Amino acid sequence: MPTDRHVAIAGATGAVGLEMLKCLEERDYPVGELTLLASARSEGRRLPFRGEEIPVRELRHDSFAGVEVALFSAGGSTSEEFAPSAARAGAVVIDNSSAFRMEEDVPLVVPEINAGAARSHPRGIIANPNCTTIVTLMGLYPLHRKFGLRAVIASSYQAVSGSGARGIVELEAQTRALAEGRPIEKNVYPHQIAFNVLPHVDRFLDDGYTREELKMCNEGRKILGRPGLEVTCTCVRVPVYRSHSVSVTAGFERPVSVAEARAAYDGAPGVRLLDDPREAVYPTPLEATGRDECFVGRLRRDHVLENALALWVVGDQVRKGAALNAVQIAELL
Amino acid sequence: MPTDRHVAIAGATGAVGLEMLKCLEERDYPVGELTLLASARSEGRRLPFRGEEIPVRELRHDSFAGVEVALFSAGGSTSEEFAPSAARAGAVVIDNSSAFRMEEDVPLVVPEINAGAARSHPRGIIANPNCTTIVTLMGLYPLHRKFGLRAVIASSYQAVSGSGARGIVELEAQTRALAEGRPIEKNVYPHQIAFNVLPHVDRFLDDGYTREELKMCNEGRKILGRPGLEVTCTCVRVPVYRSHSVSVTAGFERPVSVAEARAAYDGAPGVRLLDDPREAVYPTPLEATGRDECFVGRLRRDHVLENALALWVVGDQVRKGAALNAVQIAELL
Repeated sequence: MPTDRHVAIAGATGAVGLEMLKCLEERDYPVGELTLLASARSEGRRLPFRGEEIPVRELRHDSFAGVEVALFSAGGSTSEEFAPSAARAGAVVIDNSSAFRMEEDVPLVVPEINAGAARSHPRGIIANPNCTTIVTLMGLYPLHRKFGLRAVIASSYQAVSGSGARGIVELEAQTRALAEGRPIEKNVYPHQIAFNVLPHVDRFLDDGYTREELKMCNEGRKILGRPGLEVTCTCVRVPVYRSHSVSVTAGFERPVSVAEARAAYDGAPGVRLLDDPREAVYPTPLEATGRDECFVGRLRRDHVLENALALWVVGDQVRKGAALNAVQIAELL
Repeated sequence: MPTDRHVAIAGATGAVGLEMLKCLEERDYPVGELTLLASARSEGRRLPFRGEEIPVRELRHDSFAGVEVALFSAGGSTSEEFAPSAARAGAVVIDNSSAFRMEEDVPLVVPEINAGAARSHPRGIIANPNCTTIVTLMGLYPLHRKFGLRAVIASSYQAVSGSGARGIVELEAQTRALAEGRPIEKNVYPHQIAFNVLPHVDRFLDDGYTREELKMCNEGRKILGRPGLEVTCTCVRVPVYRSHSVSVTAGFERPVSVAEARAAYDGAPGVRLLDDPREAVYPTPLEATGRDECFVGRLRRDHVLENALALWVVGDQVRKGAALNAVQIAELL
């Protein structure tokens, strides 16, 4: 029996924080004490956990006395400021921001792929990867294990909840305004997102790529331990509330047939093949929402790269793309 | 001065038919007589053209006496049945369906790309390409001319008006039902399209590709005259009313820098670079709607293929993807 642990959630009132609470409860994580932390604004709120109402306290440097596992999901600058305090207090920090992901002495972990990397965390910090990266790699890993992933060309279809609750509010408000013939307001995205798509997720860099696209590239290499993995990615926001979809062409070191590829998913943890297109069976973000697994469909031969397949991967980016993956890392400790 | 012509539109009451009327008027096409044809159901309707109300007549085999140019946009089976009658009556048929596109003695034309192919039409039929193909090729052609297109990997974001007026009705009705908390109805798509994306456009073939994806591949080869062009395509329906977007990785025969690629669009007809991402300038379907040009943005180096670029192409598929392209073909005659 695992001993009960003192768990803290920093950013408990955000979409991912709330989902972390849900995952801890559903997965029966051995929580002894639970400390819920957020900005001063949320102090005094109470969140339900196992039938109790747990008060939210202000996140401070001295919030972590006695905490053994600290789940952070309050943005990069909050992690940069408070994660080291939590680690100094003796907690293992599992950080959902991008602040530490690419640091050499911080493991970047998807438990189904590189659980072993979580063992050594010299700074007391383990990083949770970017959501689109997790979903894409969950879809590719069973193939990588058997055929050796060499190259990825991906185009994403990302939900507005990737921008947090305000992304959801913006899509809802714009949809309502358009239905009522009122002018729309733009607060989160620079262009209308309702009934539109924007090839723009996170901010742009000098080479014309976005930070989100760069994360897909760098984080994928680190998680798979393949510094030479070739990745081109285009990240696109679509008017979907939740779950990211990715259209992927994947090139492998070894020859691969569609039948062998399908077989590679047999028994693969956390990922499910939904691929009977003639019966309209393929993954969609609506059906993936709230589910633990990532889903793969439209598996077929790619006609451009050598030893390559085209596929369609969908996963709930709030759940497996963030909260669930963090709780699964906590389960490894 | 061109002499006025007797023009017929078969499928005049459909979305593309109405847009053809608009294009003929806006572009001052030398229309002498105008015959509007549709199914018996639409007989008696009147459509506005140059300040007059033109009656719609039932499409029949004897509808084409004296017609010189017959624009068809009433679906593949209607074209198969009636286009030969129109051609026998002496008209040049410009057919927007997929019925004749891949036949050897039928030219497949995008005027900015292969206007010369329209000269010879031994069967009296010229085919208008698939909408996603037109938009994608319009974005790629200036690069192809200078660097020689070798391979294309594309993922599309296709609007519901690609399914005709009923696609628009379905997205509107589902959006309204969800807002009012009522159950949605599915008539056009096998899954909910509002706030969802479906990797499914047209029907599925044995190899796991859809007919739409195959069209992109085969039609692109024919229009560019490159039977060896390598194409992998994933066509996805998104909850957008109008204009298709395509995320493209394009490989070329010769080395190409981003600066050279940008320069290739200078003065290229029918296509415009909208590429200043730091200022949030990139094409979106909402802004491309109603425009004649196709738009290219997010131009950058691809990291997987040799001599390759990644780009984002958007175009109004009802307009340049269908009606405008057909009228431009008529202008070549």
